[in-house]
Amino acid sequence: MIRIAVDLMGGDHGPGVVVPGVAKALERHPDIRFILFGLEAESLPELEKFPALMQASTFVPCEIAVSMDDKPSQALRHGRNRSTMWRAIEAVKTGEADVCVSAGNTGALMAMSRFCLRTMANIDRPAIAAIWPTVRGESIVLDVGATIGADAQQLIDFSMMGAAMARALFEIEKPTVGLLNVGVEEIKGQEEVKEAGRLIREAALPSLDYYGFVEGDDLGKGTVDVVVTEGFVGNVALKTAEGTARQIAGYLRAAMSRTLMARIGYIFAKGAFDLLREKMDPGKVNGGVFLGLNGIVIKSHGGADAEGFAAAVDVGYDMVRNGLKSKIEHDLNLFHTRRATLSAPDEDSSSI
Amino acid sequence: MIRIAVDLMGGDHGPGVVVPGVAKALERHPDIRFILFGLEAESLPELEKFPALMQASTFVPCEIAVSMDDKPSQALRHGRNRSTMWRAIEAVKTGEADVCVSAGNTGALMAMSRFCLRTMANIDRPAIAAIWPTVRGESIVLDVGATIGADAQQLIDFSMMGAAMARALFEIEKPTVGLLNVGVEEIKGQEEVKEAGRLIREAALPSLDYYGFVEGDDLGKGTVDVVVTEGFVGNVALKTAEGTARQIAGYLRAAMSRTLMARIGYIFAKGAFDLLREKMDPGKVNGGVFLGLNGIVIKSHGGADAEGFAAAVDVGYDMVRNGLKSKIEHDLNLFHTRRATLSAPDEDSSSI
Repeated sequence: MIRIAVDLMGGDHGPGVVVPGVAKALERHPDIRFILFGLEAESLPELEKFPALMQASTFVPCEIAVSMDDKPSQALRHGRNRSTMWRAIEAVKTGEADVCVSAGNTGALMAMSRFCLRTMANIDRPAIAAIWPTVRGESIVLDVGATIGADAQQLIDFSMMGAAMARALFEIEKPTVGLLNVGVEEIKGQEEVKEAGRLIREAALPSLDYYGFVEGDDLGKGTVDVVVTEGFVGNVALKTAEGTARQIAGYLRAAMSRTLMARIGYIFAKGAFDLLREKMDPGKVNGGVFLGLNGIVIKSHGGADAEGFAAAVDVGYDMVRNGLKSKIEHDLNLFHTRRATLSAPDEDSSSI
Repeated sequence: MIRIAVDLMGGDHGPGVVVPGVAKALERHPDIRFILFGLEAESLPELEKFPALMQASTFVPCEIAVSMDDKPSQALRHGRNRSTMWRAIEAVKTGEADVCVSAGNTGALMAMSRFCLRTMANIDRPAIAAIWPTVRGESIVLDVGATIGADAQQLIDFSMMGAAMARALFEIEKPTVGLLNVGVEEIKGQEEVKEAGRLIREAALPSLDYYGFVEGDDLGKGTVDVVVTEGFVGNVALKTAEGTARQIAGYLRAAMSRTLMARIGYIFAKGAFDLLREKMDPGKVNGGVFLGLNGIVIKSHGGADAEGFAAAVDVGYDMVRNGLKSKIEHDLNLFHTRRATLSAPDEDSSSI
């Protein structure tokens, strides 16, 4: 049995989309038990439409819903202890739930998650990991916007956490990890990226296979399983890719309606276009994962439909089933123990 | 008459593609006079195929071609004063040419351009500006990889140079300018981006219309005419967009050959697909422009075909015809004079 806490009020549509999404996820994974946090008046009418879901869930009425444009500090001030978002996160802290899923606003969700769950031992900063569709399947990209900037050690932390997530989600034993960099020779890279590359190579971690530097176009190629960068660059890259996909979808629609021949062609190829749309839909591969906290929180796209929200619940389900949190803890411990051992002889020799 | 210096040896294909590209550009702009720098044995057989081009050109035989994987320092060591790339740049310095176009490797071209032409007065760092296809037409994005990092003043310099380029290329009187940022509230942005935003708003420059912050997905939307960012982020964004476009083109090809119905549809809609391919082809909107140097250098995509190279020449032609360099100098002067006037009273009052 996997226990999932859900914030019913998040997203652009609230319970009207979240509840059917949760119901879909239950169909696929009948071993989930849900704890659903919502405003009573808006949630119950939706829930009543899904008797099987009601059977598998506990509903917890709350006083407040964090709005999509609340600033993180506002959300914390007004919503702490009593908003649907806070209480869903808190259920992970108290151990009532294994994972929390919300489509609420990213800034508020991250602020509340940090405040409530705190960062793991040995982790300075949490990261948001995105699941990135590639030509080869899917990769994990982090950080896509939890914090701005990262030093070499934080980039290494991101590498280990991303690799643990790849092991949990894709069931790969030793995922390949690349550091995002730019390809102009000799001005190559920020100092912290270079240093992180050197350190991670030296550490020779058993949990990941360090590939080296990758560039922006390697994201779509799926060159590596995990791409690591700091939050500013990661956020720009993610939104640029989404924007480009929408732009091309627009071109495609325009091209297919321009002439009679094109419209006839479209009718014949409609099945293919539907498949393509599915491939290009960011909502289908949904779920940013907050890593580095004492508990897993999944952020679903605010504009996701029911299928998209269900996909985010699926991600949470897989994470728990495959022991993401203990994998991360194990890898971090190993790294820090190893580093302590490696640096010990130096300390000895300097004291002689 | 516009005089364009061309490095015939740059790019993946050398004179075999560059010469036909130059010939195409000449057909469109019969008032160009070319100075062509090449290795004799490889260039002359190509040139002989285009008598009209030979008529409109001076060919300058050189000793050395910079290779696509020479490091900038190597290229400078071996190729200074005698490579086709150096001599094409030098023609701009001596005033023999108005602009230089090369498809050679970016790092070497930038290193040689900086060394030979030097940065303009009041400019610390040059930038590479890309012409970005958008839903609304085209935008200018800079810096896409000349240097890593930029402080607030450098971001303002980029804004002014990018706006001058938009005025020259798109013939807009007062282009809109946005600073690339991330959208998570309250962790919003690097300090230097915030400061640049504040300063540029205060300066109220007559040459541009400051829009505010934009995000990664605004690039494809064409929200502003000019998007400003530092070189690491700009380079990642550019390559991510190119990679995403290629990825979707791959999906499209796969989708259209999957079933018989799709293949029939493809035949009907072939004209539409051809148009789409043209829209999505990065080679069609070709030409990174080096800004901030005492002379304009255009970098064509290394993998561009003849049509792509011709597009890069077109960009150079438009830049010169519309007085890009004097526009930039004028705007920079105005900004610095204005700032001197603004800060003058402060200095006076502190000395009282």
